[in-house]
Amino acid sequence: MTIEGVLLDLSGVVYDGEQVISGSLSAISKLRAANFEIRFVTNTTRTPKKAICTKLAMMGLTLEERELFTPVEAARAWLIDNNCVPSELLVHSALSSAFTDLPDGDARAVVVGDAGDEFNYAGMNRAFRALLEGSELLALAKNRMFKDKDGRLSLDAGPFVQALEFASGKSALLLGKPSQDFFASALASIPCPLQRAVMVGDDADADVAGARTAGLGCALLVRTGKYRAGDERRFTPSPTAMVADLSEAADWILAHRLQN
Amino acid sequence: MTIEGVLLDLSGVVYDGEQVISGSLSAISKLRAANFEIRFVTNTTRTPKKAICTKLAMMGLTLEERELFTPVEAARAWLIDNNCVPSELLVHSALSSAFTDLPDGDARAVVVGDAGDEFNYAGMNRAFRALLEGSELLALAKNRMFKDKDGRLSLDAGPFVQALEFASGKSALLLGKPSQDFFASALASIPCPLQRAVMVGDDADADVAGARTAGLGCALLVRTGKYRAGDERRFTPSPTAMVADLSEAADWILAHRLQN
Repeated sequence: MTIEGVLLDLSGVVYDGEQVISGSLSAISKLRAANFEIRFVTNTTRTPKKAICTKLAMMGLTLEERELFTPVEAARAWLIDNNCVPSELLVHSALSSAFTDLPDGDARAVVVGDAGDEFNYAGMNRAFRALLEGSELLALAKNRMFKDKDGRLSLDAGPFVQALEFASGKSALLLGKPSQDFFASALASIPCPLQRAVMVGDDADADVAGARTAGLGCALLVRTGKYRAGDERRFTPSPTAMVADLSEAADWILAHRLQN
Repeated sequence: MTIEGVLLDLSGVVYDGEQVISGSLSAISKLRAANFEIRFVTNTTRTPKKAICTKLAMMGLTLEERELFTPVEAARAWLIDNNCVPSELLVHSALSSAFTDLPDGDARAVVVGDAGDEFNYAGMNRAFRALLEGSELLALAKNRMFKDKDGRLSLDAGPFVQALEFASGKSALLLGKPSQDFFASALASIPCPLQRAVMVGDDADADVAGARTAGLGCALLVRTGKYRAGDERRFTPSPTAMVADLSEAADWILAHRLQN
């Protein structure tokens, strides 16, 4: 197992709420110093890309926008490629502007992200009716839960996507992790083949089992962020390795690097 | 196939919104005149039992409360039997009083019904957190959709139950149709064995496939209410027979009655 490319989740791996996770910045520096190309892949759909970069810069992590992959860009690209406009947007208001300047299209899609407090019955029901009338169902993410500002777990976009799938009988097209297209486009920008890549995340489902199902060579589960005891046994495939945090993950990656 | 006991769904079979479905009252009279014991089994969880009886009386259908079975009673009985109190009630406000006078208990359960417009992120998230802390998940119903006042389909309780199951990894205990206990307790009051009973409904899933899976002798799907073309092929087992409406269902039942 030799690693050439590194994909890192952000929330729960690099930072937690507004705090940098101890050791994560030096771990990233160490990987960069060893000439690893890193791509940051986040399913966070409450914050636009530019705002994520600004937040990271304030935390001491500098990255270019091209190093950051979010499901919002993937969804915009899919909508344009498929001549499609949103019939209903169930996304956080901070993101809705990302979907307002799309070209006209004949097809329709319901777009679901982590709308958080903005999820309500009326919006869910409009989305359901649009699905019955023929709209596609696009999920920016399908994560079950995330670690909220109060330190407790809260509902992510996934349960609401699942509700609409169950009601309508349609399957959502997933744009973020663990979609193979999403991982593949981040790795193509390095470039690095899937089987030479590692994904590091705190979500045993979307980050770890999902990455391995998508064909990535390995996936490490950190015990920071939303990790709860036993998560490594809740989903299959299981992690390639368990690590305490990003710092230990970096050591693992350096031990498995491609020797030239 | 000989029929002794009849279970009828209400909404979409006897009435549609505020209107009696043409021929349904005379169909019920005909069945009663032929000495069939009828039990009315509804998953409607927006209206208390007494109010349903009043509504039916105003429509010209007289029935005693003992002839009507709702998931609310089943849920109350389960909570009391299991020494359990609700940790979170996601039910319509018209029903919440049905859960306020329960005896104290050590165990906790999230109770989900068709809360309709009262479903929101904050309540769903409180329910999710209660589930993570050990509450059971009780579903009054798990119907996907219902025919709304405007004549269009709307989201029922099911998608929200499914969302909480997906997020928490717990399976809901279903109190209403198609729970075998629910059908069985309605039939026990006749009394009639499951295999000699017929269920008539407009929901190809909970009323028809569900009743047959629960062991009922037969289940008829009407083309009134929320029925949409092709519903008979969407779920398995398929209906014993398709009928235009309750009137045609009554004729089918009379043709299959137990000959003494």
